[in-house]
Amino acid sequence: VNFKLLGTAAGGGFPQWNCACSLCDLSRKLPELVRPRLQQQALFSSAAAGLFLINASPDIRFQIEANPELHPRSHQGKRNTPIQGIILTSADLDQVLGLLLLREFQPLTVYATNLVRQTLEANTFLRMLERVPNQLSWVEIHPGKPFALAGNITCTPIPLPGSLPYYAGVRGASDQASLGVLLEADGVRLAYTPAVPEVSPALRSIYDSCDAIMVDGTFWSDTELNRTDPATPLARSIGHVPMSGEDGTIALLANVGARQKIFIHINNTNPVLDPRSDEYKFVIDAGWRIGQDGWQLN
Amino acid sequence: VNFKLLGTAAGGGFPQWNCACSLCDLSRKLPELVRPRLQQQALFSSAAAGLFLINASPDIRFQIEANPELHPRSHQGKRNTPIQGIILTSADLDQVLGLLLLREFQPLTVYATNLVRQTLEANTFLRMLERVPNQLSWVEIHPGKPFALAGNITCTPIPLPGSLPYYAGVRGASDQASLGVLLEADGVRLAYTPAVPEVSPALRSIYDSCDAIMVDGTFWSDTELNRTDPATPLARSIGHVPMSGEDGTIALLANVGARQKIFIHINNTNPVLDPRSDEYKFVIDAGWRIGQDGWQLN
Repeated sequence: VNFKLLGTAAGGGFPQWNCACSLCDLSRKLPELVRPRLQQQALFSSAAAGLFLINASPDIRFQIEANPELHPRSHQGKRNTPIQGIILTSADLDQVLGLLLLREFQPLTVYATNLVRQTLEANTFLRMLERVPNQLSWVEIHPGKPFALAGNITCTPIPLPGSLPYYAGVRGASDQASLGVLLEADGVRLAYTPAVPEVSPALRSIYDSCDAIMVDGTFWSDTELNRTDPATPLARSIGHVPMSGEDGTIALLANVGARQKIFIHINNTNPVLDPRSDEYKFVIDAGWRIGQDGWQLN
Repeated sequence: VNFKLLGTAAGGGFPQWNCACSLCDLSRKLPELVRPRLQQQALFSSAAAGLFLINASPDIRFQIEANPELHPRSHQGKRNTPIQGIILTSADLDQVLGLLLLREFQPLTVYATNLVRQTLEANTFLRMLERVPNQLSWVEIHPGKPFALAGNITCTPIPLPGSLPYYAGVRGASDQASLGVLLEADGVRLAYTPAVPEVSPALRSIYDSCDAIMVDGTFWSDTELNRTDPATPLARSIGHVPMSGEDGTIALLANVGARQKIFIHINNTNPVLDPRSDEYKFVIDAGWRIGQDGWQLN
């Protein structure tokens, strides 16, 4: 299986449009040092199954143009796409807005839980994907239940506790609101979890079985947002275990079996974005990597 | 008044994500010759009034980062924006999706007709702009009725016949669905009309009074889309007077008084995108220019 990160920033991207913090500032002034990042996005593919996206970020148009394997093929008619399907891990705008950029009457297949589908179908903008018959095809997926893609990739939605985004107007946790993805193909296992609200024994056990794990790297510390704006919440209260501390992901996953451990979904406030920082050094010394746009599993 | 084009492509941008036509192909292979374009977007500003956007394209994050005058200011606190307001000319996704990228609890002021506001407020995603008090402030505007921005810019919504986008689920024309914008400041008059369904005497008279006009350059000919895909509609039937022909914009506006005549909102199918084409030469010889991303009025 081929797996590629097309974006590694949390929602808003890096730099963030209205942020003049020292990290955003550096990414504008010294982009060769503190690299800008597109919003979290991944693809995977195999010769037999074709190419799939995990989520559809608001930056998807630029992610398509920057990666030739996502371009339409000139020998297949004027309008076409190599994208066979899109697997949604939540209904968050940062994960779904890109669907609205994949219009132009192109047939799309979207894999989602029933709850995520209902949340999106309640939105009027989605009607732009339903203008002609078979433009948008939904495939229902279930937490913990594997499904096959063209026979040679197995995809298992990893259940994670979570709730629908604010815009859905629905409170309370559901096992259908937020997922990770476990991919298995050609004897390789990879876990993709951009939002990790807690490292449960079940999740740890999945990570342990994998060759590569992509783990929520949104925040370095629980109080990181507070330091930019005292009115903002703690990392854990919005569903993200931070990297640092005794109960952070680095400590909790210190002995996990995966050969490659990569942080993704990095918020513009996270000091690891500066490779000169002590925090960056700590991550690398602990055997982790900070995901980069364009990184491929090999 | 300062006026700048931040994007000059019709909806979908150029190249378009699923299009392998010869123009899109060229923009990917020879971008220095056939230049890629971001989706239609403009800004204007004055020292007294500050900076305003006309619409909010899906590419707005990249348009902000590419134009330093849109960056937050590091001496004004960590979170801020120079954007004083956003004037909406329609509820089309290509003009409004960018609003959803201007989140992060930043106060926004949006100028729109009551109909456009209602259409957007019916959309669940917009709730992400209404999470804290005063995050989203609406200012109602009326076709044909001038309003002042900080005393030194006068903005007049130009009424154009049109209907709401498909997703609104409402049929029929309304004078509130689609507007142009007439800007007046420091003795300069500029008309901005990315969608022109007909060149009425009233519109012609506005153009005649202007120093610079930005005119719908979506299509070269009425049948242009048909040639890519026979199932697609004629240019005029979807609200765009084409450039060419006896009843095209070039002929109809041949003797208009404006000193600068610029085509904007150019679709990926329009042959003028290739500067080697006969159509491009025709446009230039007729005294028009093809708008470029980054072009400024001077």
